[in-house]
Amino acid sequence: MNKYEQLASDIEEAIAAGTLRPGDRLPSVRETVASRGVSPSTVFEAYYLLEARGVVEARPRSGYFVRRSRDAAAEPHSPPPRAESTSVAVSDLVLEVLGSLRERDVVPMGSAFPSPWLFPLQRLARGGAAAMRQLAPDDLLEDLAAGNEDLRRQLALRYVANGVAVASEEIIVTSGAMEALNLCLQVATRPGDVVAIESPTFYGCLQALERLQLKAVEIETHPREGVQLESLRQALARHPVKACWFMPNFQNPTGSLMSVDKKQALVDLLARHEVPLIEDDAYAELYFGARRPPPAKAFDRKGLVMHCSSFSKCLAPGYRVGWTAAGRYAGAVERLKLMSTLSVAVPSQVAVLDYLRHGAFDKHLRGLRAALAQRQQQALQFVQQSFPAGTRVTRPEGGYLLWLELPAAVDALQLQRLALARNISVAPGHLFSTSPHFHNYIRLNYGHPAAERMQEAVRTLGQLVVELAARR
Amino acid sequence: MNKYEQLASDIEEAIAAGTLRPGDRLPSVRETVASRGVSPSTVFEAYYLLEARGVVEARPRSGYFVRRSRDAAAEPHSPPPRAESTSVAVSDLVLEVLGSLRERDVVPMGSAFPSPWLFPLQRLARGGAAAMRQLAPDDLLEDLAAGNEDLRRQLALRYVANGVAVASEEIIVTSGAMEALNLCLQVATRPGDVVAIESPTFYGCLQALERLQLKAVEIETHPREGVQLESLRQALARHPVKACWFMPNFQNPTGSLMSVDKKQALVDLLARHEVPLIEDDAYAELYFGARRPPPAKAFDRKGLVMHCSSFSKCLAPGYRVGWTAAGRYAGAVERLKLMSTLSVAVPSQVAVLDYLRHGAFDKHLRGLRAALAQRQQQALQFVQQSFPAGTRVTRPEGGYLLWLELPAAVDALQLQRLALARNISVAPGHLFSTSPHFHNYIRLNYGHPAAERMQEAVRTLGQLVVELAARR
Repeated sequence: MNKYEQLASDIEEAIAAGTLRPGDRLPSVRETVASRGVSPSTVFEAYYLLEARGVVEARPRSGYFVRRSRDAAAEPHSPPPRAESTSVAVSDLVLEVLGSLRERDVVPMGSAFPSPWLFPLQRLARGGAAAMRQLAPDDLLEDLAAGNEDLRRQLALRYVANGVAVASEEIIVTSGAMEALNLCLQVATRPGDVVAIESPTFYGCLQALERLQLKAVEIETHPREGVQLESLRQALARHPVKACWFMPNFQNPTGSLMSVDKKQALVDLLARHEVPLIEDDAYAELYFGARRPPPAKAFDRKGLVMHCSSFSKCLAPGYRVGWTAAGRYAGAVERLKLMSTLSVAVPSQVAVLDYLRHGAFDKHLRGLRAALAQRQQQALQFVQQSFPAGTRVTRPEGGYLLWLELPAAVDALQLQRLALARNISVAPGHLFSTSPHFHNYIRLNYGHPAAERMQEAVRTLGQLVVELAARR
Repeated sequence: MNKYEQLASDIEEAIAAGTLRPGDRLPSVRETVASRGVSPSTVFEAYYLLEARGVVEARPRSGYFVRRSRDAAAEPHSPPPRAESTSVAVSDLVLEVLGSLRERDVVPMGSAFPSPWLFPLQRLARGGAAAMRQLAPDDLLEDLAAGNEDLRRQLALRYVANGVAVASEEIIVTSGAMEALNLCLQVATRPGDVVAIESPTFYGCLQALERLQLKAVEIETHPREGVQLESLRQALARHPVKACWFMPNFQNPTGSLMSVDKKQALVDLLARHEVPLIEDDAYAELYFGARRPPPAKAFDRKGLVMHCSSFSKCLAPGYRVGWTAAGRYAGAVERLKLMSTLSVAVPSQVAVLDYLRHGAFDKHLRGLRAALAQRQQQALQFVQQSFPAGTRVTRPEGGYLLWLELPAAVDALQLQRLALARNISVAPGHLFSTSPHFHNYIRLNYGHPAAERMQEAVRTLGQLVVELAARR
């Protein structure tokens, strides 16, 4: 644990013990520097981390205070999933809900993407065009399936910078993370196989299983801590699990983040069973803490982890540039890609490559993270103002999604339809599981609307929830 | 039949009857205008068509002459395929051969793409960049799976201009024709189903069947006239065919072109059996005749034809913009796309859209066709100069591929390896069928090298063939 993490942890303990109470002011930076013998930047990082975790809040010109509101909206539950494996069929519902997002006037709180206004689109277009004009025509036909050689090298460099040993040879560029995940799933399974997934999970995972005629066994997933390893252990003992599809960092929909120790234990457990892990890591760059949480891939010694990510949510929406570092499966993934979509659009690849080389990617990411962290604070505040008692909500340490448990009487699908009639979209819990446990849950995207629009939309949603809760 | 087609047909009959003999000069345009009462342009179109068919040749300042060389290289045979359906496994060989194309120094006569130097890449990059800069950020997330609304409208307009009734609603933009074909195949079949394919066929078709665990029943395919309907009729009677995958226009690898009547009969036959047709029409714009040959889709009354094409071979290689007009299957294709790759890269879509709107697409195509037609003449000449007696070769009316039948003793795979050692790639017949009928066939791409380089490469190939033929 770093110095600032230690300091943050000490403060959290003080709050848990009642030494610091809701509304109390934290010691000033100067006081803490003096009392602990640490640098001011350590104190700032600790306070920032606590703020990101929702433990404290900054008040302009007054300092940091222990939040009062934490109890007002407790964490959602993580109901134990069914023990048996099930076939999957959610596509109709997903299509219906996604279809509603196309209307421009809708406040897209059901969307899976952050606002495209948050991205350096002009810079990308300019750099991409320059790179395309400089490209030798022959380069358009090179590196077909695996992707642009230089882009793969840049990706490998970023892995290494994050302490993950990945060679560019095991990287395949794909049409977004979605294609990467689908290809990885297909190389690891045959129709009828059992795959372990989170409960709740990203509906794209359920759709992929449905498309490939795979069976799902759902693993209990804590809304803050992620996959419960004991639940996974039982599933591995009971079912012939051929692959796992998990999101250790800022899981969709819950936003949960597995700890470093837990990731290590996960990889070790799967290595003992020789079960591949398809790691969906699309949100990791959107952390609010001090540094990027490592992927499970960082602990992979056997080439069993297929790490999948993309630039769609952190740099270049619509460009469809994703990738997988697929370990021992890289050859099979490349081959399957060659047979299905052949290669990724060169203009997109060179635009992203140009930005990685000459743009200010890390600076852009810092701004994006700060913007999303601020929106989360606002969104949580609006939820607490407008939603009825009994509502429980996550407070993820990254990303742009909240996961809300509503009073048990509320049907999220009914809420979704009523909200849509008022030009607000939400993603009902029905989309995220084959079991009915999440029918009173919704996922809210706070990465889109401006504060006033979000406040009004959340207020409307809150009223609808109150009405639905009272109806039964 | 048009006037010019009638005229061309009359001349062909005169040649067949011996009235006009090899080396004879055709009547001048003025004479023919006078004798037949047609316009000069009709005569030009007829002579141009005959030239494209390889029946006559133009000599500068002398007029048109009946070719002497036609007998020297007769058409390849179309051996009857196996009657039973078979599972498919060609991927390893395909990957090995395609892998050899990545080397820059190789004369890529085994490539599936024409030279990227033939395309307006600077104009595409410039227009695409301008379009991206003008794009509203929200447009990056609209029209996700089906593709850019305006691009789909432009595609529908081109169909209508070609006399094919297609609404933009049934068009799904895809990552090249390859993804379109794969999606269509998947919506029409379940693992284990039987699919009727051409013999020989594009190896991408064989790979798609392999990937989806489908069985192939091969249909006899004439190297000039395409699918033999009698052979298809028998297959439909004998096997539970769930779909057909055919290339009626400039088939890969043979270059065969089904006549209008034959296409009509094909669509009618399949309609009676309620069997969907996946129509791979990637080469149709590369015709050497007077106008674009219609797709089978033009005769579709029941929404059973899924017409697939792309801009990869006629405008924008590497951009990965293809599409399908999928008739009654459009909804299922869109849904499957949403689950697998989500959407096509926006920069690619808007670059192509900008070119269709503001570029000179038809002018570019005219230039491209003329360049390819000229290269074909050269390539045929070189083949006739260098290949031994007993070599038979197609003379397609479009595209950039020749299909050669070599003396029976020559093993094309052996030839491919020897040629590669001399920095020349060819595509051996082994790639194009699950049966061993084409082991003495090769596909030659004449859309790449400049004349001198092609001449030298073909000479080397011819020598190798002579050596291999003598060895046994």
